Formats: sequence, structure tokens, C-alpha cells
Amino acid sequence: MATAEEAEKKTLVEIVEASCEPLDTARYVAFVRDPACGAIATFEGTTRDTFEGRSVVELRYEAYTPMARRRLGEVCAAARSRWALERLAAAHRLGRVGVGEASVFVAASSVHRVDALAACEFVIDEIKASVPIWKKEVYDNGEMWKENREFLDRHLSPATTTTTERTTKGGCCAHKEKISDERST
Amino acid sequence: MATAEEAEKKTLVEIVEASCEPLDTARYVAFVRDPACGAIATFEGTTRDTFEGRSVVELRYEAYTPMARRRLGEVCAAARSRWALERLAAAHRLGRVGVGEASVFVAASSVHRVDALAACEFVIDEIKASVPIWKKEVYDNGEMWKENREFLDRHLSPATTTTTERTTKGGCCAHKEKISDERST
Repeated sequence: MATAEEAEKKTLVEIVEASCEPLDTARYVAFVRDPACGAIATFEGTTRDTFEGRSVVELRYEAYTPMARRRLGEVCAAARSRWALERLAAAHRLGRVGVGEASVFVAASSVHRVDALAACEFVIDEIKASVPIWKKEVYDNGEMWKENREFLDRHLSPATTTTTERTTKGGCCAHKEKISDERST
Repeated sequence: MATAEEAEKKTLVEIVEASCEPLDTARYVAFVRDPACGAIATFEGTTRDTFEGRSVVELRYEAYTPMARRRLGEVCAAARSRWALERLAAAHRLGRVGVGEASVFVAASSVHRVDALAACEFVIDEIKASVPIWKKEVYDNGEMWKENREFLDRHLSPATTTTTERTTKGGCCAHKEKISDERST
């Protein structure tokens, strides 16, 4: 098991501020490549051109960067605690992301493939469910803050909110203030 | 559901003959990128520098290419039948593969991430278990054909072979003639 310091050196966490530059996915893959490893698994989340029949022009992501970065780091640490990973990179882009471009990228390397594959899936699932980044879908005829159902499922359980609250506060951006450290990793 | 012809156009299967060129993984990722998709999952199998404490210099892969390509195509078709994939690429390199380099690469794209992630894992598992490609490990002090336990588990079940047969025919290369079309997909 790597020490905390070693693990930190072998983990790359980035919230990439709004710009026109695409995520440099090759750099993340290069970061996790390691002669001790036999496996690299990656996941790339891209903007797709339609949502529920509407034509999507671009997505726009917003976050309070220090909070998003901290939570993304916690997700990576949780992945390391569960699987035997050598190197791990996770990045999320903010701002406008055009159709076909990457908004989020995860890369994991390990000696045996089961660890990299499982960790990669875990990290993207946890990003969706627990990293406070908000998404607006921009259509050719309007725009809308997008509900992230996975995030809501995690943070608005029936035990703490009523159906009425969930209905009236259903949008992603309505819950910005609800993000705090009580999340489980 | 895509027609068989559409699926074929959106599936790339390659057995790359022995050369000094690395697998062009960026080309496979570009092949699966699609504006209709929100997810790209990849898996890269690389040569690692040690095996059971021995220092590995390189791996060497051999195959009867038409048979390996056909089986790889069947694996991709099986993945398409199980998950909603848009595009799929699977490639295996033959010949010498140095430490840190890729011998096998899988890329899958889909509208929702669960399909690409699951299919990517399925394809690499099936490649290991059913595509007839043989691996020799070259150490700094010798070389050895490598048993592929997953392949043997699939093709030498207790119902058809005895323990003695498995012991005496345990090497990958000893089973070349055993590959045939009776495999299940």
C-alpha cells in the first residue's frame, strides 16, 4: 500500500477553468502510464448533440472550484482505498463544452485490469453523484439548468426532504448551498 | 437497434501484425467519438516490467491472424447485442511489445455511460478468455510461453479434460489446435 504522500504524487486532480481549450486527455493517460502496470482504463464524458429530442448546441459547467477540486480529490482517495491502483487522474472542465468535446475525464492504471476498470467506473459514478458541478444545457431554441438525478438522489433523500421540497427545488443550481462535508466517501 | 450493416461500419476490429510501431490508440478513440454519444470508455493492456518477481524485458504475441480477427469480431458483435453501443473498436498487436507499450486496446462509445463501461470490460474479458493469441514473456534471464488462465478456464473445463491433461498441456502454445468454433459468445 502506498503511503499518503506517494499516493498524492501519483494522483492528478484538476478542475479546468473555463476556456476554449479542450481537455488534454492524452496528458492524463500519459500521467497514469507506468511500467509496473498492465492496465489503463479511461472514461471520457462528452457533450452529446441531443437531449430528449432537443438539439443541444453546447453544455456549460459551473462550480466553486476549490470545493469541486477538494471533493474530486476525496473521490480519488476513496478509489485508492478500495482498489490497488498505481496512478489515477481525474479532471473536469468548466465553462462551455461543445458537442463531441470532453467535459470530464478519468484515467486509472493498475497491475491487474480489474482494479483500473472498477476504479474508473467508481470515480465517474462518484463525480456525478457527489462533486458539486452544475450543468446547463444550451439548445438551439433555449437553455436549461440540467437536473443531475444522481446528485439529487444522493443529497435529497426522503429522510431529509419532502416531496414538495424536491419538486420546488428540483434544479441543480437550486441546491448549490446544500453541498457540504456531510457526504460519505 | 442498428442494422448489421450499420453496426459493421461502426465497428473497427484489427489484429496488427508484428512491427515496431505502437498501437495508434488515438485513432481508435477518434473512431468511436460520435456527436450522438455522451460516453467513451477505453481499456489498454500494457506490458508490465515484472511478473512474479522476474524482470520482464518485453512480451511477444503470436496468432493465426484470420482466426484471431474473426473471433475478435465475434466478441464485438456479442458486446453490441448486449449493450446499446454507438461505436466500438478493438485491436490487438502481434510481435514484440516493450514494457509500458500497449498490446491490446478497446474503445466503446454510447449515449449513456453504463453501456460503454460495461461493454469495454466485457470485450477485454472475452479477448483474454476466447481470442486465440499466445503470449511469451521475455525476461532478462530467459523466456517462457505464458499460461493464460482465463483462456484455459474457458477451453479446458473439467468435463472435457482430466487434471493430468491440464498439467501436461498447461502452456498457452500447447493448445493452439484446440481453438475452434464451438466457443459460446
